[in-house]
Amino acid sequence: MKPWAVPHTTVNPRAHLPASTLLQPPSMFHATPVFPRGFRCASRNVGLKPTAKDLTLFASDVDAAAAAVFTRNHFPGAPVVLGRETIQGGVLRAIVANSKVSNVATGLRGIEHAKRMAAAAAKELGTSANRVLVSSTGVIGVPLPIEKIETGIVGMASELQENPMLGAEGIMTTDTFPKAMSASVGDSGATITWVAKGSGMIEPNMATMLAYIFTDATFDAATLDRLLKMAVSNSFNMLSVDSDTSTSDTCAILSNGLAGTVDETQFLEVLTAGCIRMTETLARDGEGATRLIRVTVREAMSTVEARTVAKTIVNSPLIKTMVYGADPNVGRLLMAVGKCFDCTIVPLKTNASINGFPVVAAGQRLEFDDAVVRETLARDEVEIEIWLGVGAGEARAFGCDLTEGYIKENAAYYSS
Amino acid sequence: MKPWAVPHTTVNPRAHLPASTLLQPPSMFHATPVFPRGFRCASRNVGLKPTAKDLTLFASDVDAAAAAVFTRNHFPGAPVVLGRETIQGGVLRAIVANSKVSNVATGLRGIEHAKRMAAAAAKELGTSANRVLVSSTGVIGVPLPIEKIETGIVGMASELQENPMLGAEGIMTTDTFPKAMSASVGDSGATITWVAKGSGMIEPNMATMLAYIFTDATFDAATLDRLLKMAVSNSFNMLSVDSDTSTSDTCAILSNGLAGTVDETQFLEVLTAGCIRMTETLARDGEGATRLIRVTVREAMSTVEARTVAKTIVNSPLIKTMVYGADPNVGRLLMAVGKCFDCTIVPLKTNASINGFPVVAAGQRLEFDDAVVRETLARDEVEIEIWLGVGAGEARAFGCDLTEGYIKENAAYYSS
Repeated sequence: MKPWAVPHTTVNPRAHLPASTLLQPPSMFHATPVFPRGFRCASRNVGLKPTAKDLTLFASDVDAAAAAVFTRNHFPGAPVVLGRETIQGGVLRAIVANSKVSNVATGLRGIEHAKRMAAAAAKELGTSANRVLVSSTGVIGVPLPIEKIETGIVGMASELQENPMLGAEGIMTTDTFPKAMSASVGDSGATITWVAKGSGMIEPNMATMLAYIFTDATFDAATLDRLLKMAVSNSFNMLSVDSDTSTSDTCAILSNGLAGTVDETQFLEVLTAGCIRMTETLARDGEGATRLIRVTVREAMSTVEARTVAKTIVNSPLIKTMVYGADPNVGRLLMAVGKCFDCTIVPLKTNASINGFPVVAAGQRLEFDDAVVRETLARDEVEIEIWLGVGAGEARAFGCDLTEGYIKENAAYYSS
Repeated sequence: MKPWAVPHTTVNPRAHLPASTLLQPPSMFHATPVFPRGFRCASRNVGLKPTAKDLTLFASDVDAAAAAVFTRNHFPGAPVVLGRETIQGGVLRAIVANSKVSNVATGLRGIEHAKRMAAAAAKELGTSANRVLVSSTGVIGVPLPIEKIETGIVGMASELQENPMLGAEGIMTTDTFPKAMSASVGDSGATITWVAKGSGMIEPNMATMLAYIFTDATFDAATLDRLLKMAVSNSFNMLSVDSDTSTSDTCAILSNGLAGTVDETQFLEVLTAGCIRMTETLARDGEGATRLIRVTVREAMSTVEARTVAKTIVNSPLIKTMVYGADPNVGRLLMAVGKCFDCTIVPLKTNASINGFPVVAAGQRLEFDDAVVRETLARDEVEIEIWLGVGAGEARAFGCDLTEGYIKENAAYYSS
């Protein structure tokens, strides 16, 4: 027995609260992702990477109302600068995205390259450049090999297919698998489809790296903008793989209206659930990650404080390595809560559990069987719950463990 | 040649500015650290660790004026709670510190244990408990084996020696070497001696983990408090190993006056230089670290913004892994500057260099020979300099690279 294994009778009185209902069950999503009516995509290798796909084209058969949110980083990539202008029009016909080179910190030449990329896609699809959203992801600060893209895109219009996974493949960087999902929404047979990539340099302050949402439900651009911001706020904006904010984050939604009207509340509900699910998928596939970490903070003084505490925990290297090693060093939870200097924290009111198992009560580490906590920390999904006992603020953040794999990927990202 | 290796004529116009003068040359410190007159220490294994030293006693022959700063974490350890009370008296005779168990999140029992630890040291030295500062470092949330300390301390008074390294050994946790240094100050033959430990859970907002400073120069407690805060502000408070803030951070200074008066300006200069040097030593020995990273930010809108940008860069996992891998992926510098959302950042005015070699000018990655940057990133000390071009704010932060070693140490810290 460890010297500190003194019997302890205090238990967390809230340990049996139901798990948060924020998370929708995966069963609402289609077993195999499909596109809404009128959307298709294609992807190719155009020579940016040695052999893997590096260029993706998403297209709608008809003009689609559109909205988008972008990174808050002070050094936005050229595609983001151009995209902010493009999205003002509220209409998109296509998205063209490349991986390997992000076209960031490339000056006026970068803007020129982004425009040429939009023009090339527009020409291939027979639309105008101001209806094409451009994204680039990859190394920062090196010129985009635009000629390869202009040459490589020719003929892609004839390869468009109704499988969103094809598009997901073309935008991967260090992702270990392509990410696309879809769900039905409303009574008119409408569909929402999400395609995204993530992995590293991920603590979006606007959206995740690249996330595209397609629907055939009818909404105007202003409504899409409002709904997108609401959905993103509790999903992609609560994701952190490594606390670093990309210069390329983009999340766009396109609605081509081919399925007609859908009730807005119903739509928002499915939209949010899908964004949260995609956020979890991105977190689980964070660079080097072996586990998804979900941190729910309740009873905070405000929602803002709940978000701060949740993000702080999900970003703490010592929490992340504790989860990786399934090491029941749960005192670190208090360290991480305690370093939220500007939040209202009352040690005696602070409780915590891991996968429903109480580990901290009244600011003290509980007496427990290490083996039980070790076992629960070793699960694929680790849910950390914190009760602050000072208010009604609630938030949930998403992240992953920190492993040698993250170090390996990022110690030679440029060179490899 | 890489596709992006297009000749680029812009160079950083400030590349040949002299390196910052903030850093004092190491030659000012004694080759072998010594104590000021009247200070001695002893350390022992009392059974908290299997065999390594785990208890240290620092003592002054006479009462010393004293000041201290502590962690801002909302869950301060019991020794910090007690220490804040003790330091009100402005007089210390001794410091007693243990490693292995931090006595944090241990409730009223923890406070009781900290008081018993002070009392045991006071009894051994023939002074009163309110003149003994207590520190504990190690695992959070487990009870302190106080009986082992009370028993183990008996007889230590007779072992006190004039070698500060002995004390440094007794407070190590994951440190790979003990840390002590000393320097002469003023004309009266006075000395300042620093003894510290660091390694992980280090982004002090008040002081580093444990840092003790001893001097025989004469100052009163109020002056010491003022000087300590000034010195700590540009040294320990600009250190980050992993962005996690310990619950036990303590930095104390003791002045026993045995060498008489020293000019305050001269004293502050040496005090600050030593604190910066000790900060660099702690950074270089961060958990798993292979290199010291020094980030200097100049021309920021304000000192506060310079500090924010410097801390953000030194904490970025992608910068840390880039340095570890000596990977010339310098675009990441812009990403990290750019995620300081609330700072004034003008891309066209942003320049950067690594070890004096310009890598970014006017917000763009410069054309350079990768091999040169790779070589400079592989040095033991990596100096990153950023010019923001928007003001006169200046700050320097200290950190280290992020390696597999950090993961290994922290994935099984509790269990090992």
